[in-house]
Amino acid sequence: MTLKQLITNKEEIKENLDYQIEGWVISNRGNDKVRFLTINDGSTVSNLQVVIKGENIQNWNIENISLGSSIIIKGNLHLTPEAKQPFELLACSLEVLNNVDLDFPIQKKETTLDFLREIPHLRHRTNLFRSVMIIRNSLTFEIHKYFQENGFLNMASPIITSNDGEGAGETLLVDDESKDFFFKQKAFLGVTGQLHAESYAAGFKKVYTFGPTFRAENSHTSRHLAEFWMIEPEIAFYDLKDVITLADDLLKTVIKNTINNYPDEMKYLNSQNPNLLDTLEKFLHNKLTVLDYKDVIEQLKKYKDNFEEKNIFFGMDLASEHEKFLAEKIVKGPVAVINYPKDIKAFYMYQNEDNKTVRAFDLLVPGIGELIGGSQREASYDKLVKRMKDLKIPTEPLQWYLDLRRFGYAPSSGFGIGFERLVMYVTGISNIRDAIPFPRVAGQIKM
Amino acid sequence: MTLKQLITNKEEIKENLDYQIEGWVISNRGNDKVRFLTINDGSTVSNLQVVIKGENIQNWNIENISLGSSIIIKGNLHLTPEAKQPFELLACSLEVLNNVDLDFPIQKKETTLDFLREIPHLRHRTNLFRSVMIIRNSLTFEIHKYFQENGFLNMASPIITSNDGEGAGETLLVDDESKDFFFKQKAFLGVTGQLHAESYAAGFKKVYTFGPTFRAENSHTSRHLAEFWMIEPEIAFYDLKDVITLADDLLKTVIKNTINNYPDEMKYLNSQNPNLLDTLEKFLHNKLTVLDYKDVIEQLKKYKDNFEEKNIFFGMDLASEHEKFLAEKIVKGPVAVINYPKDIKAFYMYQNEDNKTVRAFDLLVPGIGELIGGSQREASYDKLVKRMKDLKIPTEPLQWYLDLRRFGYAPSSGFGIGFERLVMYVTGISNIRDAIPFPRVAGQIKM
Repeated sequence: MTLKQLITNKEEIKENLDYQIEGWVISNRGNDKVRFLTINDGSTVSNLQVVIKGENIQNWNIENISLGSSIIIKGNLHLTPEAKQPFELLACSLEVLNNVDLDFPIQKKETTLDFLREIPHLRHRTNLFRSVMIIRNSLTFEIHKYFQENGFLNMASPIITSNDGEGAGETLLVDDESKDFFFKQKAFLGVTGQLHAESYAAGFKKVYTFGPTFRAENSHTSRHLAEFWMIEPEIAFYDLKDVITLADDLLKTVIKNTINNYPDEMKYLNSQNPNLLDTLEKFLHNKLTVLDYKDVIEQLKKYKDNFEEKNIFFGMDLASEHEKFLAEKIVKGPVAVINYPKDIKAFYMYQNEDNKTVRAFDLLVPGIGELIGGSQREASYDKLVKRMKDLKIPTEPLQWYLDLRRFGYAPSSGFGIGFERLVMYVTGISNIRDAIPFPRVAGQIKM
Repeated sequence: MTLKQLITNKEEIKENLDYQIEGWVISNRGNDKVRFLTINDGSTVSNLQVVIKGENIQNWNIENISLGSSIIIKGNLHLTPEAKQPFELLACSLEVLNNVDLDFPIQKKETTLDFLREIPHLRHRTNLFRSVMIIRNSLTFEIHKYFQENGFLNMASPIITSNDGEGAGETLLVDDESKDFFFKQKAFLGVTGQLHAESYAAGFKKVYTFGPTFRAENSHTSRHLAEFWMIEPEIAFYDLKDVITLADDLLKTVIKNTINNYPDEMKYLNSQNPNLLDTLEKFLHNKLTVLDYKDVIEQLKKYKDNFEEKNIFFGMDLASEHEKFLAEKIVKGPVAVINYPKDIKAFYMYQNEDNKTVRAFDLLVPGIGELIGGSQREASYDKLVKRMKDLKIPTEPLQWYLDLRRFGYAPSSGFGIGFERLVMYVTGISNIRDAIPFPRVAGQIKM
């Protein structure tokens, strides 16, 4: 039984219950009469206190067991209702598998995030990263669970594509060592699985992808990675309104379940960032604000002196500072902005009757800005072709995509969640490089 | 409510229950008094029969609704206990959203798998691919569920690495358009997430990855893809025996649950491949056979005339024909082969005392050959370094990996499941290109 299972099923704990913990030493203190080891087994941020008494201290050479060592301890649980953790382990046997070398970089003393980013293979052995990665795991599974319980089909959109994505030059190329077109054509790492997901929504109705996406992003910000994970649901017979409702319900469900299932990790993260739980609870209990892009522009104009980019006008792409200000200062919570100008959005979005805007939405959250981007898709074959021609996008490579409109098309809508941004939002960490085990950014590959 | 939910909760169906189906037309037959449309909503391979009577046939222009059209039908359920499906829908209203153009390639008549492979964006609208992808989805979720229920942490191993994998020349390279080392060094698409998973097992104890992996595989076989998904669990405090037990239990659990939860799809697949369910049930109810590599060699020698490669000797790498023969003819079921010669296995595997073999296992299954490959990992820093030097693998780029042995190492074991091979095994399809929505192989990228 893991420590997490023990903590979760407290009622099963009885005085003297046999228990064995396999894990790593977090601390070792005491005197020559009684010593306390705290052990973490990786299942929770909480540790188990192990008590060692009498001659065992010397026999087992306890004083020399250092932080980080791998260890197996058998013993009996002792109830301690008055303590922070209502049980501890009285050790009967102890085996140190591997003591750590002296240069083990994770020590009791505080270390900076910058320093920890240099050792991504070890940083999860701190309380902070242990908590972040446990929450990341919870969010992963809760997202799958949500979609499966709601009748969605998980599909694998291809990673390697012949499509260079939405923008120019931001795509990574793939080839074999000979650089002789292994795929007989230029091949790219996908920036989205959406187009392929649309083809599966036409037939399976409700589908979602959950996989890595790539961008040759050269800007070094705290919100961008060259390799990140995306969740992209796509649903036939859904319009923009339906898909915003879905996004809101999905987020609220996975966040609520994560808070409920991982109270110790959320408590720890809240101790590092005291507004975290309040902010999340507020989101859970409030109706999502939906604002029209044109109204957002009018609002932002009133605050233009707060921005570096003070030229606010209909047709502009909102900068990160505008998105954050809107969510943090004006709405004071998550906000879905809808009906963006078509010229700043992708060709496949549903064209509104005004001929100026498209049925897109971005979900903006405090502290991060854009968390989700989505839209209803254009249903008309002719409108799509015209839009592609206007934007000088060759239609031939996407003929298969256009054809979906001719073969039993139903209105289709979907969105993409930047998974690491969701991890940031729920854990309260402020740099996206701390939301993924081994971050990849321009100019470096660590480990 | 989806059709799948309706079928699964049969007890909720009452005569006259209001029901709306949104989906695609599978067939349209009848006469001018009564017509039958069968509709599929993507949630199951089963279709709903819709009955249209009297003047509605003409008013709604039923005769012109063709296969593949998207449609919304409201009506009342009518119980038909004597029929194959115990209910049908009597239509009250019907709306065709999009009739298909005449060149829609999915027609009632049989089409070949080769032909369908040319249209990966449409082939899921056949019974076969609908079933395969629904089973693929079930296996995906059951695997996550199994690991989560057993205390594993899902982690994202990086896709882009500085490590060119286990073999030479089989790795795909990544760069940006300028081909000027976007990552300031040669960057590869990962062939395994194992080394990174090992670093997370040291701390989280039980972890697993589920993501795409890549190989510049030039052989055109029915069992290889350039892009495929892998599941790689890694567990600290586990040895080879533990991890074989885990692999067996994982496979049996996810297959059993998939058969139970998707009876209609498995029934359809069994109709295409009549031994399928028998084979799977036999696996579920039998203890996994475990054989030592050296004994396998002795066995295969007896049958050497059955092989193209007749030279069977200790030290050889088993060819696919040997693996299949062993599983199909000798064991007649899945078999774990253990203790392979170290020279045909990777540097990180635990070296046995005989100095000749390593604690590796391959799980071989009938029809496919290798489904899983795994091992206990070498625990000794010095042995690892020596082995790398013998194999001329530079130690410097993997110093971080070696260091795991110095920082509280616990015996660690793990394996990788080729996910598409598992899909083949459970669905009975014989070409791996039919186990993934958009297959990627050397020389072509379709869609």
